[in-house]
Amino acid sequence: MNLKEKLAIKAKPVNKALEKYLKIREPKKLYEASAHIPLAGGKRLRPVMAMITCDMVGGNSEEAIPFAAALETIHNFTLVHDDVMDDDDLRHGVDACHTVYGISTAILAGDTLFAYAFEMITDCNIEDRVKADLVKNIAYVVRKIAEGQQMDINFEEEETVDAKEYLEMIRLKTSILFGAAAYGGAKIGGTSEEEARELEKMATDVGLGFQIWDDYLDATASEEALGKPSGSDIRQGKRTLLVIETLNRANDNDRKRLIEILDSQNTDKEIEEAVGIMEKSGALEECYKQANGYLEDAHNTLSNYPESESRQLFEELLEYMVTRGH
Amino acid sequence: MNLKEKLAIKAKPVNKALEKYLKIREPKKLYEASAHIPLAGGKRLRPVMAMITCDMVGGNSEEAIPFAAALETIHNFTLVHDDVMDDDDLRHGVDACHTVYGISTAILAGDTLFAYAFEMITDCNIEDRVKADLVKNIAYVVRKIAEGQQMDINFEEEETVDAKEYLEMIRLKTSILFGAAAYGGAKIGGTSEEEARELEKMATDVGLGFQIWDDYLDATASEEALGKPSGSDIRQGKRTLLVIETLNRANDNDRKRLIEILDSQNTDKEIEEAVGIMEKSGALEECYKQANGYLEDAHNTLSNYPESESRQLFEELLEYMVTRGH
Repeated sequence: MNLKEKLAIKAKPVNKALEKYLKIREPKKLYEASAHIPLAGGKRLRPVMAMITCDMVGGNSEEAIPFAAALETIHNFTLVHDDVMDDDDLRHGVDACHTVYGISTAILAGDTLFAYAFEMITDCNIEDRVKADLVKNIAYVVRKIAEGQQMDINFEEEETVDAKEYLEMIRLKTSILFGAAAYGGAKIGGTSEEEARELEKMATDVGLGFQIWDDYLDATASEEALGKPSGSDIRQGKRTLLVIETLNRANDNDRKRLIEILDSQNTDKEIEEAVGIMEKSGALEECYKQANGYLEDAHNTLSNYPESESRQLFEELLEYMVTRGH
Repeated sequence: MNLKEKLAIKAKPVNKALEKYLKIREPKKLYEASAHIPLAGGKRLRPVMAMITCDMVGGNSEEAIPFAAALETIHNFTLVHDDVMDDDDLRHGVDACHTVYGISTAILAGDTLFAYAFEMITDCNIEDRVKADLVKNIAYVVRKIAEGQQMDINFEEEETVDAKEYLEMIRLKTSILFGAAAYGGAKIGGTSEEEARELEKMATDVGLGFQIWDDYLDATASEEALGKPSGSDIRQGKRTLLVIETLNRANDNDRKRLIEILDSQNTDKEIEEAVGIMEKSGALEECYKQANGYLEDAHNTLSNYPESESRQLFEELLEYMVTRGH
């Protein structure tokens, strides 16, 4: 069995739970809009991470299923709202929620998915003490995700963005939900607060590597592989880590040209030119290294756990997250 | 001491909690946007209802303060998102959140207020069992509020709306958060599930009366009294209960004329004409009666409780909610 199949097996009960929760109710338009993106597929990386973490600390991951499903509705709620804010028409190769159902219903669908998450967490067959702890942690994390998205919006209006600030933005916007997945899985698995926080830190770092890789792929992979137009970050003039590292390294001419491309409407040829500048400057290589650095740290943390099938699967999951598409 | 002063005393610790939670953090724009509407004032009817209910069943309403504050952030999150959807520039006489901070940040501010609510609930000094119960109930109620808002959006595209459907819409969109306030206050106060559900039903009915009154006031009260332009429902062509009852009662000419006014851009004179048709048809009188009917039912429920200061205050609160402005 290859890794993809192993992950699919872990994701299966979560998908079943999502289908059950997200069944179409009245008013149909709201519930169809709510189910549109989450039931369009996806690798369920956050749920799977929660399930594997639960197993790895000696718990029963069946008890984590509704929590794992909640991570997915949280993730999808942020995608649906982000697509409204960024006016992105496509999401993972399907029409964005607001493209199909309009902006008002998309905002409501996001709110609905957000609400479902807390219904799911309280549906877990776990102690009330753990439920309350997970609710608090997820609510805090959602607030932090909003901070990250606001930082991202702010960056678009700024001339220069610092690499450190950028990393903090993606830590909030993307990584900490992976951290919350590991934390929650570990707590449901019955581990100590201290150990759960260590696993949270590890998964957050992996989330950082994952996001840096995402920015990298946006510049280098095909539309088919991405499920969205390639180079869309460049087209939107986003200051990704790739851009920031390029601006720090490129010569004056290249730097000016890259800013010019970022700040205007672009042809495909100009996107290619921008990617060329990124490669020439060494920034592409740098991003590759950073993503892999986070992965190494995670492997070090995992090596403290006794060898087991679930630890092995966790290691493979990390590898997959950070190097998928390669 | 008059009623307004008594309510202000109950609201005071809730306002203090809101100020503490909603203090400005980084990124400032997000947190300023999040605090903008909730800290612009307001009567805190939902928090006060939770506090009074807690007292009335024999509990200590100090324990309900963070829950009461959560009701207010939930209420404000829905206001902020609704104003984006309805493109309303003013809210209670101040600029809407998106008017000041833009649509993207307003969506995020709503999400942030939503998240805060669950941090607040889990901060209550109550049993974990009760926390989990309140989280589940509030999450469910938020989903129902989204259903109500979707029904409201749907109605704007429909030629005719049934009075029963309309009442169901406002029950979801507005009333059940009052129900959740009473339910939560009662549970924190240590009462049984059955009694808490009875109080929830009562408060939901009061919320219905409150909303019918709101529609009525929109047509009849001044901009100064409303804190928003009067007749804005008519201007937006909304099918309120007032409109529905008028269409059921008016003669053919009046009915046609009212629809004409609702479906076009209006001068102040045409708004006045529409209100005239509503009055002539007897619909204004009917709405007044319905609002008061809900109030009477609520008084009947309350009369089952032993006489106390808090029962007295609850009765006065209901009166105030349904007849404010008169």
